[in-house]
Amino acid sequence: MTTADGPLGLVETQRVVLFEEGSPLVLASGRELAPVEVAFETYGTLSPERDNVVFLCHALTGDAHAAGHHGDSSERGWWDNIIGPGRPVDTDRYFVVCPNLLGGCQGTTGPASTDPRTGKPYGLRFPAITVKDLVAVHRALLSHLGIERPMAVLGGSLGGMQALQWALDYPTEVPGAAMVCATSRLTAQNIAFSAVAREAIMRDPDFNGGDFYDQEKGPELGLALARMTAHITYLSEEAMRQKFGRRRQDPSAPTPDPDAPESDFEVDFEVESYLRHQGTAFLDRFDANTYLYFSRMMDRFDPFADNQVFERLKTLVTRFLLVSFDTDWRFDSSHSRVIQRQLARAGVPVSFREIESPWGHDSFLLEVPEYHRTVDTFLDSLWRER
Amino acid sequence: MTTADGPLGLVETQRVVLFEEGSPLVLASGRELAPVEVAFETYGTLSPERDNVVFLCHALTGDAHAAGHHGDSSERGWWDNIIGPGRPVDTDRYFVVCPNLLGGCQGTTGPASTDPRTGKPYGLRFPAITVKDLVAVHRALLSHLGIERPMAVLGGSLGGMQALQWALDYPTEVPGAAMVCATSRLTAQNIAFSAVAREAIMRDPDFNGGDFYDQEKGPELGLALARMTAHITYLSEEAMRQKFGRRRQDPSAPTPDPDAPESDFEVDFEVESYLRHQGTAFLDRFDANTYLYFSRMMDRFDPFADNQVFERLKTLVTRFLLVSFDTDWRFDSSHSRVIQRQLARAGVPVSFREIESPWGHDSFLLEVPEYHRTVDTFLDSLWRER
Repeated sequence: MTTADGPLGLVETQRVVLFEEGSPLVLASGRELAPVEVAFETYGTLSPERDNVVFLCHALTGDAHAAGHHGDSSERGWWDNIIGPGRPVDTDRYFVVCPNLLGGCQGTTGPASTDPRTGKPYGLRFPAITVKDLVAVHRALLSHLGIERPMAVLGGSLGGMQALQWALDYPTEVPGAAMVCATSRLTAQNIAFSAVAREAIMRDPDFNGGDFYDQEKGPELGLALARMTAHITYLSEEAMRQKFGRRRQDPSAPTPDPDAPESDFEVDFEVESYLRHQGTAFLDRFDANTYLYFSRMMDRFDPFADNQVFERLKTLVTRFLLVSFDTDWRFDSSHSRVIQRQLARAGVPVSFREIESPWGHDSFLLEVPEYHRTVDTFLDSLWRER
Repeated sequence: MTTADGPLGLVETQRVVLFEEGSPLVLASGRELAPVEVAFETYGTLSPERDNVVFLCHALTGDAHAAGHHGDSSERGWWDNIIGPGRPVDTDRYFVVCPNLLGGCQGTTGPASTDPRTGKPYGLRFPAITVKDLVAVHRALLSHLGIERPMAVLGGSLGGMQALQWALDYPTEVPGAAMVCATSRLTAQNIAFSAVAREAIMRDPDFNGGDFYDQEKGPELGLALARMTAHITYLSEEAMRQKFGRRRQDPSAPTPDPDAPESDFEVDFEVESYLRHQGTAFLDRFDANTYLYFSRMMDRFDPFADNQVFERLKTLVTRFLLVSFDTDWRFDSSHSRVIQRQLARAGVPVSFREIESPWGHDSFLLEVPEYHRTVDTFLDSLWRER
């Protein structure tokens, strides 16, 4: 998912308080939230006309650190392969902005932040959020940077959902929106996977109703299980076959080992080792409460269910690019087709590409040449038309 | 999965000790196990020639109670819809035998049984078992009933795996083997789902290394999560869409409810309620250790990997019926095609039918007319040829 030879060097995460007590963020639910601090990174240079902004929206478990490194050049941002001089998100041309999402756990205000009313972490007292709220914060961040509007909004999965919501909520402000393996509405099966993840977290004995921040450990069992299950849905069956097949970690190990019966149920096949590693590594960087808030927000996202949306679509200035991958079964191509139909029906310009890639949903993070070329062309055309 | 108007009335689960200390069961691993008690049910009448036996092998979470009822006629066996007078598994013709599997938790010796060496439940000191061991016990049960060989062995999922193993291990003894949505080898993705289930159970704080039988509660959290995740794989995405869609449990409930933030992450959509119910109901009837043993046994099943198997296949007297369902994504049709190719290559008679059904893997438990007709025809032809 990252490359060791990315072109960007040392980058820095910045932080800014965008909403304060006297001027709070008013959420879609009507509730108010303050302070709201946002962590973000930028790459490239803002043009004098301030019209070269590519705004990146991250997915469920992403963060503001999309490209470059923070000191160790072998550890690079999550989208490093698409960002940099001469790359599709070309930092010689574009001014790239990537924030951590509202409700997140990598520097932006979320459930782990201090609730000013109590002086303690919010936990589940953090207000419920919607994709509309994420977009409101994105806009406020642009204003803070002295930018009126992005040239393009780009994101994969939940990131794509934000691009769509931005165009719907601010129909005259988004010239281009690129949604990669995104959805306008989760299916029952998608929600089912969300539900199991939440169940794992909330039933963990260390969850403590979300107030686990001062405990020795939080709901690590539940969060690791949520991550492991999610990873099954991020890879295609074919990708798992190619990567792991039925290979065993230690082909010489006896099965079963009569001297260690319990070990018989621990890691044996390589795919088990991979999943366990994914589950464990996640604990260091993610907050279980953020997982709850984001997964529930995704379940409820359904912008085309709004009766007003068709009229609103007619006022859009946005051109859309939809990209899906043929082996993605988390949000398969039918999700993109639903979006395409809704947009096209209202006369919104939309281009949809289903791209071949064996890697399933994970493809959006990988250097799939046709995908990168498609994004490159889309951004380039917006740049020329700006 | 059951029908209230099944034709069989009151049935009884019987129990028999098949292996004792002086004459233990020798497992494929070389280890010995005794005593081995087996719970089983029979339906219909054994013919004087003892040649009308249809042996049913149950799946991961099944039991000996396949048909009829135990006193409450509204609660019927798990395969009640296919068994009875005039049904495909016709009790006017066939003598039907269905045992609980070795390692199980519904009357047959398994991890919850008393280890005679310690006087306590085996827990994870129960020996690892293979599908070969299940079949060895099935044969011993038939011997006990005075039967030399079955006319047919029939099973879905893990049940079908037993039918295949039986034919391979005793090539002259199985005239017919019907494998419904079965597999000869799990894929990496199948193993990945197994691994998450095991992780959920073994990391549960109440697991206690498998010694939870005298605790107030066992690893209920883990077992419920395992069951919930499994249920996602038993239904097709389309079946979930039809059954639940994005319908909410209580459409009038506020989302979010500002007065009860934690409740926002509990059940909201109907599919969440369904999964939670499946998880909870399972706790009453299933042993977490059995889940570990059976899932690991399935991961390791790979009979065609044995170099000797091709020569052995040439000696089979078995005719095979393979049935898969077009929307099954747990063991999709490609699993059956692998089996078909292996058998056909060795000249073993095999008939494969992929049947349309929206219900995914669960279809094998449901009254899908074409499927039931196919089983009916297969058993009928074996009966005529016997």
